[in-house]
Amino acid sequence: MASIDDDDGKHDPTLDLVLHPPVNFAMVDKGIYRSGFPTKKNFPFLTTLRLKTIVYMCQEEYPPANLKFIKKYGITLMHFPATGNKEPFTHMSPKVVRAAVTAVMEPANQPALIHCNQGKHRTGCVVGCVRKRMHWSLASVFSEYRRMAHPKERFLDLQFIELF
Amino acid sequence: MASIDDDDGKHDPTLDLVLHPPVNFAMVDKGIYRSGFPTKKNFPFLTTLRLKTIVYMCQEEYPPANLKFIKKYGITLMHFPATGNKEPFTHMSPKVVRAAVTAVMEPANQPALIHCNQGKHRTGCVVGCVRKRMHWSLASVFSEYRRMAHPKERFLDLQFIELF
Repeated sequence: MASIDDDDGKHDPTLDLVLHPPVNFAMVDKGIYRSGFPTKKNFPFLTTLRLKTIVYMCQEEYPPANLKFIKKYGITLMHFPATGNKEPFTHMSPKVVRAAVTAVMEPANQPALIHCNQGKHRTGCVVGCVRKRMHWSLASVFSEYRRMAHPKERFLDLQFIELF
Repeated sequence: MASIDDDDGKHDPTLDLVLHPPVNFAMVDKGIYRSGFPTKKNFPFLTTLRLKTIVYMCQEEYPPANLKFIKKYGITLMHFPATGNKEPFTHMSPKVVRAAVTAVMEPANQPALIHCNQGKHRTGCVVGCVRKRMHWSLASVFSEYRRMAHPKERFLDLQFIELF
């Protein structure tokens, strides 16, 4: 960290702190965050969000280190196993996505973090559907999806969001 | 809007509402938003944010339609006229950016919206400096900057943020 706030020449120990948000981290709305898969490096940052819930969209079991972290901080894991929308044979289940959307938008579950592996496709679909519930225009929903999925935007994800 | 929540077959008039966030809109943190220049189409959306302050980073005067909008909703305009970081002769003033960063991080001014024209460069620099104050690692700060500035990332902006 550079010399912010050190005009008086004294050493401020908080300046030594560096926080590492997970890859592709962003705030969606009050109480709703999104990211790629958090690793140990990201745990100190995650504690600053005071999460109540993690909405996890991959099919795999949650890793032991992450389970230990959420247990320590009293975070509830809500697991919605989903496959991504990929030509030609795998697709996300609208039912699973609907359940995930309802979970993250429920104030009792917030602050909530939605994540998958990269925070691009499955997370992007869930957030896109959250935006539709918030009455965002499709131009804005797609623009946000593309920004976060870049350079791996998937037409099938956009179609999924539009049809939701 | 698709047929969300209409299982009972009744027409829900709120489904007709479509909100148009400004170009490149995103939530930075609790009470801090960023975007490109809002136009009339975006005003209904902006009212949902219940803004207290707009932090405006362009050199030009604020347009009459926008002035009328902020007056109607009691929003304070804080104008920090800045030029972007462009090779070889124009650059942002660290003093102006520092003032803008302090303004948006002041809870009394929040919720606050930072905007310039595209929401990419001047806004990207202010948000990058906000993230440094929040102790984010440079990898995360730059990743967010690039996502929002794409496809027009500027090396000088990254350098500005690093040196801030």
